[in-house]
Amino acid sequence: MSVQEINVPAPADFHVHLRQGKMSELVSPHVAEGGVALAYVMPNLVPPITSAQQASDYLASLSALAPQTKFVGTLYLSPALTPDEIARAAEAGVRGVKSYPRGVTTNSEGGIEDYETYYPIFEAMQKHNMVLNLHGEVPSNADAGICVLNAEEKFLTHLFKIHRQFPDLKIVLEHATTRKAVEAVKQCGDTVGCTITPHHLELIVDDWAGKPLNFCKPVAKYPDDRQALRDVICEGHPRFFLGSDSAPHPLANKYPSAVTHGAPGTKASSSGDDDLEPTGVVSCGCAAGVYTSSILVPLCATLLEGFGALDQLANYVSLNGRKFYGYDNADDMKNGSITLRRASKGATGSAATVPAVYVHPEYVEVADSDASKVQVVPFWAGKRLGWEIVRS
Amino acid sequence: MSVQEINVPAPADFHVHLRQGKMSELVSPHVAEGGVALAYVMPNLVPPITSAQQASDYLASLSALAPQTKFVGTLYLSPALTPDEIARAAEAGVRGVKSYPRGVTTNSEGGIEDYETYYPIFEAMQKHNMVLNLHGEVPSNADAGICVLNAEEKFLTHLFKIHRQFPDLKIVLEHATTRKAVEAVKQCGDTVGCTITPHHLELIVDDWAGKPLNFCKPVAKYPDDRQALRDVICEGHPRFFLGSDSAPHPLANKYPSAVTHGAPGTKASSSGDDDLEPTGVVSCGCAAGVYTSSILVPLCATLLEGFGALDQLANYVSLNGRKFYGYDNADDMKNGSITLRRASKGATGSAATVPAVYVHPEYVEVADSDASKVQVVPFWAGKRLGWEIVRS
Repeated sequence: MSVQEINVPAPADFHVHLRQGKMSELVSPHVAEGGVALAYVMPNLVPPITSAQQASDYLASLSALAPQTKFVGTLYLSPALTPDEIARAAEAGVRGVKSYPRGVTTNSEGGIEDYETYYPIFEAMQKHNMVLNLHGEVPSNADAGICVLNAEEKFLTHLFKIHRQFPDLKIVLEHATTRKAVEAVKQCGDTVGCTITPHHLELIVDDWAGKPLNFCKPVAKYPDDRQALRDVICEGHPRFFLGSDSAPHPLANKYPSAVTHGAPGTKASSSGDDDLEPTGVVSCGCAAGVYTSSILVPLCATLLEGFGALDQLANYVSLNGRKFYGYDNADDMKNGSITLRRASKGATGSAATVPAVYVHPEYVEVADSDASKVQVVPFWAGKRLGWEIVRS
Repeated sequence: MSVQEINVPAPADFHVHLRQGKMSELVSPHVAEGGVALAYVMPNLVPPITSAQQASDYLASLSALAPQTKFVGTLYLSPALTPDEIARAAEAGVRGVKSYPRGVTTNSEGGIEDYETYYPIFEAMQKHNMVLNLHGEVPSNADAGICVLNAEEKFLTHLFKIHRQFPDLKIVLEHATTRKAVEAVKQCGDTVGCTITPHHLELIVDDWAGKPLNFCKPVAKYPDDRQALRDVICEGHPRFFLGSDSAPHPLANKYPSAVTHGAPGTKASSSGDDDLEPTGVVSCGCAAGVYTSSILVPLCATLLEGFGALDQLANYVSLNGRKFYGYDNADDMKNGSITLRRASKGATGSAATVPAVYVHPEYVEVADSDASKVQVVPFWAGKRLGWEIVRS
């Protein structure tokens, strides 16, 4: 007889985007709904979070929206950051600094290109026991043979170099998507961890080809890469853990209407001819990101069971990450444990059915065609999960 | 001083989709507008073209829409096809038979899985000098490590096997996208040709990631693959030639609105758990295909010039394909030659600016949000081409 109930100790999501304004109002309460007690929140806001004060203010705004959740803050690595600010941030409880290579994902235009510039910052971080969170992709460069499919692999030399230079600095390679990245993290010492998203445990390239809801960065890759991610969860490797990279985008940005946005066009490619620049063309791209916060722990349970790793659920969604970050003492663990139960078969419309869309209350009455409408379609919308949270 | 005018002898497009009904009315006249004199038309209609009579009727309907264009027909390879029907089709002027592996592209659900079943058909085709057109991808199968990125490479063993078995059968590997495919065709004998689309000369995976207008099958691949396609055009290899794979899709299918289509969802992935099937979920996928017919020869000139192959334009868009198919005699060549001139700089709104959208006349007054509206956004919409056709 298969397991019918599972207790999961205080799940923690070590990589989540909670945005600002109306979107933050919509999604911040979803963290607890998805079963997560501790949320490690990304700093790529507009403007990005670059100071201890900004981080504190942001966390306060999130706590006001969702008092039951413990939010942990991060700073955005940029030339504006100083060792003194690192000291202040550490004092204020900011736990890490996120590095975005320039232009590879949402609001990363101010991202970094050369890591040596930041060695004084890394030095200060190491001293104050802060974590370096690496978006592990180099920017695409067709002339150099680099595209979204090998951008992660090409980044790994940076990971090795920083780790060698700062062996005591805690580093997390975020949202690994390839076998090579998994192997690289394993080769590193105990100070290097790795987040794996649930959607990358499920998707391959075919699943986002022409399917905007499944399109995210880094893109999901080959079946063999997905297998490597599943295998490392199965084996319970202690340095691999949940970071959902849950990233809400308004539906209008996931499915932009070419007509609504005026003259559509395609991004100028590398023709190298100035005469061929687009003239007044809107590039109708779909925003990159998969939204999972609202269903996170039941989704993880469902996926892990699918590849025989249900016994690793607590390690994946709670213990491994908490140990790596140091949020595993009795005090940290005492609140937020949840119980999952197997969802009953055929119960369409039950709590185990993922909602089709989440709409901010202020926009419920607004026409769907209004591009300003704050609404988000979750991963697996309309599908049934194998597990649901027992609400007390 | 650079070339200002080019005469191109009777361009021919050896792979084009002209559809049915209103869409066919919209796009069939575009073939001549794009500078093409001979169009080799794909048979993946609903229902597919599987008999000589259907092919003749279809070609007559196209000729009625665009009398100035020479249309050449094909049959859809399926179990319904017989050697006798091949004989009738050859007699009726049908030039080839198109093979679609099951499920890999538009209207290919009836495609084939095992080629040996069709050896009697290939025998008849060889006898009647008909061409076998291969969509060179195997179906994705994550358990076997096959996805859209390596589906073409995995197909090449089928190409070699059929060629070895039928060395006198003319075979075209359609819309090659990889270095491995180019090398495979080169290794084959003179009876094996290969079409290359203009959009695959321009796009890499980054260009369709989250960009539905650039999404097509086979998907554009790595920078090195694109380089291999460019190189084989540069060198003027006689068995590589233009097949645009121009594939018009209604804009509503390229940018489906998740909300308009009801409960959106994501395609069931390989969870292998029957309990997890979607319930009443619409998969909001974007149709695969890039539309280039209306701008085809100027686009090819622009792209070839961009990688230093303008001197190969006539070979690519006319001579190589015509020689392979045998449409290169004086009679075939005497009509449809065109002159291109360099588009003047800064002439926004000139003929060299690609239109934002083509709308069937009956739908011009219909609201853009009407999903039934027959409208197509071309590749490079709103961008300027480097060359334009001199209209006499």
